[in-house]
Amino acid sequence: MKFSELVNRIDPAAATNLTAGLEHDPDILGVSAIEEPLPQTLSYIEGAKFAHHIASTPVSALILPNDPDLQSQATDRGLAWVVSSLPRKLFAQAIAEFYQPFRLDAEIHPTAVIHPSAQLGDKVAIGANVVIQADVVLGDGVCVHPNVVIYPQVRIGEGTTLHANCTIHERTVIGSGCVIHSGAVIGAEGFGFVPTPEGWFKMQQSGYVILEDQVEIGCNSTVDRPALGTTVIRRNTKIDNLVHIAHGCQVGENCIMAGQVGLAGAVKVGNQVILAGQVGIVDHIEIGDGAIASAKAGVHHNVKAGEIVTGVPAISHKLFIKATAVFNRLPEMYQTLRRLQKQIESD
Amino acid sequence: MKFSELVNRIDPAAATNLTAGLEHDPDILGVSAIEEPLPQTLSYIEGAKFAHHIASTPVSALILPNDPDLQSQATDRGLAWVVSSLPRKLFAQAIAEFYQPFRLDAEIHPTAVIHPSAQLGDKVAIGANVVIQADVVLGDGVCVHPNVVIYPQVRIGEGTTLHANCTIHERTVIGSGCVIHSGAVIGAEGFGFVPTPEGWFKMQQSGYVILEDQVEIGCNSTVDRPALGTTVIRRNTKIDNLVHIAHGCQVGENCIMAGQVGLAGAVKVGNQVILAGQVGIVDHIEIGDGAIASAKAGVHHNVKAGEIVTGVPAISHKLFIKATAVFNRLPEMYQTLRRLQKQIESD
Amino acid sequence: MKFSELVNRIDPAAATNLTAGLEHDPDILGVSAIEEPLPQTLSYIEGAKFAHHIASTPVSALILPNDPDLQSQATDRGLAWVVSSLPRKLFAQAIAEFYQPFRLDAEIHPTAVIHPSAQLGDKVAIGANVVIQADVVLGDGVCVHPNVVIYPQVRIGEGTTLHANCTIHERTVIGSGCVIHSGAVIGAEGFGFVPTPEGWFKMQQSGYVILEDQVEIGCNSTVDRPALGTTVIRRNTKIDNLVHIAHGCQVGENCIMAGQVGLAGAVKVGNQVILAGQVGIVDHIEIGDGAIASAKAGVHHNVKAGEIVTGVPAISHKLFIKATAVFNRLPEMYQTLRRLQKQIESD
Repeated sequence: MKFSELVNRIDPAAATNLTAGLEHDPDILGVSAIEEPLPQTLSYIEGAKFAHHIASTPVSALILPNDPDLQSQATDRGLAWVVSSLPRKLFAQAIAEFYQPFRLDAEIHPTAVIHPSAQLGDKVAIGANVVIQADVVLGDGVCVHPNVVIYPQVRIGEGTTLHANCTIHERTVIGSGCVIHSGAVIGAEGFGFVPTPEGWFKMQQSGYVILEDQVEIGCNSTVDRPALGTTVIRRNTKIDNLVHIAHGCQVGENCIMAGQVGLAGAVKVGNQVILAGQVGIVDHIEIGDGAIASAKAGVHHNVKAGEIVTGVPAISHKLFIKATAVFNRLPEMYQTLRRLQKQIESD
Repeated sequence: MKFSELVNRIDPAAATNLTAGLEHDPDILGVSAIEEPLPQTLSYIEGAKFAHHIASTPVSALILPNDPDLQSQATDRGLAWVVSSLPRKLFAQAIAEFYQPFRLDAEIHPTAVIHPSAQLGDKVAIGANVVIQADVVLGDGVCVHPNVVIYPQVRIGEGTTLHANCTIHERTVIGSGCVIHSGAVIGAEGFGFVPTPEGWFKMQQSGYVILEDQVEIGCNSTVDRPALGTTVIRRNTKIDNLVHIAHGCQVGENCIMAGQVGLAGAVKVGNQVILAGQVGIVDHIEIGDGAIASAKAGVHHNVKAGEIVTGVPAISHKLFIKATAVFNRLPEMYQTLRRLQKQIESD
Repeated sequence: MKFSELVNRIDPAAATNLTAGLEHDPDILGVSAIEEPLPQTLSYIEGAKFAHHIASTPVSALILPNDPDLQSQATDRGLAWVVSSLPRKLFAQAIAEFYQPFRLDAEIHPTAVIHPSAQLGDKVAIGANVVIQADVVLGDGVCVHPNVVIYPQVRIGEGTTLHANCTIHERTVIGSGCVIHSGAVIGAEGFGFVPTPEGWFKMQQSGYVILEDQVEIGCNSTVDRPALGTTVIRRNTKIDNLVHIAHGCQVGENCIMAGQVGLAGAVKVGNQVILAGQVGIVDHIEIGDGAIASAKAGVHHNVKAGEIVTGVPAISHKLFIKATAVFNRLPEMYQTLRRLQKQIESD
């Protein structure tokens, strides 16, 4: 389609301000990354770091930040461009114009095993070999890919997608617009065992899991239900693959957890928190709004709102960077100390 | 039910000693956590840390430790109570009076695919789309949830539960009373490759996995079989989600492994060992009875019975705490050292 | 079979050099590990560390390295033996003479759900409840175990095996001779979200995953597809259980990744790289050919070819070992420093 038409679709407001390159108004066949650019595509530049690509890129159009210098470079090259305060978001919208992930047709595959008490909304898609047990409620437009198992009394909101081979345990409540990726397990029994002289005694896990709207849970990740009460993940929080959320955790809105993060029992995470890859948080810890834990951090103490922590046990990121710089010099420091010691004691 | 009846069911011995609050003998409708208490429920207090709740809790009855002070406080509030040396265990028993996890009915779903050579005990429950291959033997009361796959020659003991979408590989032996949670994979090929000038050469894994009685394996955890011999997890050991037990490991009785623990090949773990979240143990290491590895520890050396280790590489927990305290002061220590050095060398 | 026949089968070249023990040419019933040896079996000794077993082992035959001393010890014990420059590889070949993993018969189970547009090669084996969607192409001899789900437009090369309950997402290309272990998820959406003032905005992941020939992916591991372009794992690279490879990573040939390794987005890994258990690599990092990251390393900087790195953040392994040794002495070092400080300042 024409560049102007594409911009009009993804950002009508921006389209009214299209100023440059539109003499040509090139045909755009797709999108490409600025580092692997393709002719006749749209790409984007987020900031100065990638600006040098403008001089030679074979793409036909660019999304640019509000930077007159970059814009005039693009104009000089004869490229069409549009300005956005969030170039990457606009680019994501452009990808979605050219590509939508595979969805099942809104029908029920004859091999699906659906309990007669289950309630299915309009335009629900149920794939082959899906198993839906008693008293499950699926909202309109829910898409359940093949071989998913849903235990009894689960409720799933409108437009949520469950990918293949995932398992949703009894009483789980999932909001609308969520995505549960392949192999994820939501609502299984929390890891609750009481130490006794005869060994570990199982505590039944009578609670359930709540995922609010727009939550995503990555492939093979697990969110456990607690002995009593709920495990909650609030709206628009996105969780990557192989993450473990233990029983009784309360996770706020708009958080991001990267791959292989682990939360022990009853952790409280605020809103807009970022946990980088392989972070671990011990039980009953509280993480304040907007806090960040760096990759591989092991959090043993509460983290205040806005704080950035690193290391095991996690400390202030700034302190960690300084202390680590000295750690790398410990061998020479040790030698220096011993030399001084000898010198002083021989005085 | 009446409080006295509940106590009688869960601990008849304790019931004979019920002494206080029984004028009222309140109706108990359920259980609740002392921090999220509900009226007309039973809760428990394990120690002094939670004692302040007694003054205002809306619950009707409490399980208390053997502490006359707490008991008289409860009596003063008009609460019914019972004493236990293991309050949390008794509370777990009370939960189980009011709640039992979902179980399939003891029947075989018509969509299950069961090889004619498989032997099924009495009252076995087989869910939809389960696949059971040749020469599998299931004991009485085994419950296999939907979409589980069992490879040939697997034996599973009485009353064991396999949750949805888990996979049990060839020749695995699982004891009685075990729980294999959703998505777990037991008995797959160990990661055995021989380095050669032409690249990695696959070593077939001809051994098998043994899980003894009462073992639990968490969601999406994996226990691999070895090239020769067995991988063994002994009775009553409980393993959380996303744990990896490599080929040839020997794990003792009554151990606990929290989420995302990883054991490399041929690790030997004694009895009553506790491995906290995200612990990793390198191959061929031996961990003595009753040892503890703290969260995120990386164990590169054998650990003696009863030892507590922390850090990467893991050292004595006490030493780690002291060394870490100094680590956090490394920047100032470095400055001090340089100042002293200048002072001395300028003398 | 006779030892000489066994050697002839697994290494005809070596068979012509059989020199010792062949007066007896023992019957070999199987293989056993030198540390758990069985009578009438073949075992192997790789080097001096295990040489003491020769004196008392009950096995009938050994694979030995080119070491005349070990060979004469074996001859003295009346053991048959054969020499190899790669004893472990020859032993792996011997295992494969006595054991082959379970394979499905080359037929299509009637419960499999196969889209009419899918193209299946010769001698393909499709297990029960497998779901194969539109435009999938399976090469000759592909073996798909029960309950696997294959999304549309996937291509899988000759002789590749997919174990139970794994999921292959749309457009994934898998080479020949690969093994995808149970529960693994290949080609799911990368974790791509754009920060905006209204929260995380999803970027569709229009790329796909390529696994070249002879790649193995462990149980419950995940390899994600990128927003644009490909995630690639090159030939003969072997990946263990619960590993996460994020969107856009490029992994070279003949690499090994042990359990629970995690690669963030767009990491580039060279050839012959070894990543030990629980290693994490942050996004956009490059790892040179032949580099090694030790268990639990957290790699925040590019790693040169051949380098060995350890720690978080990962540094040269040699420096890490030295610095760690001092770390363990930090408490005493701190005391020493304070004592010196007082001494000097009181002068």
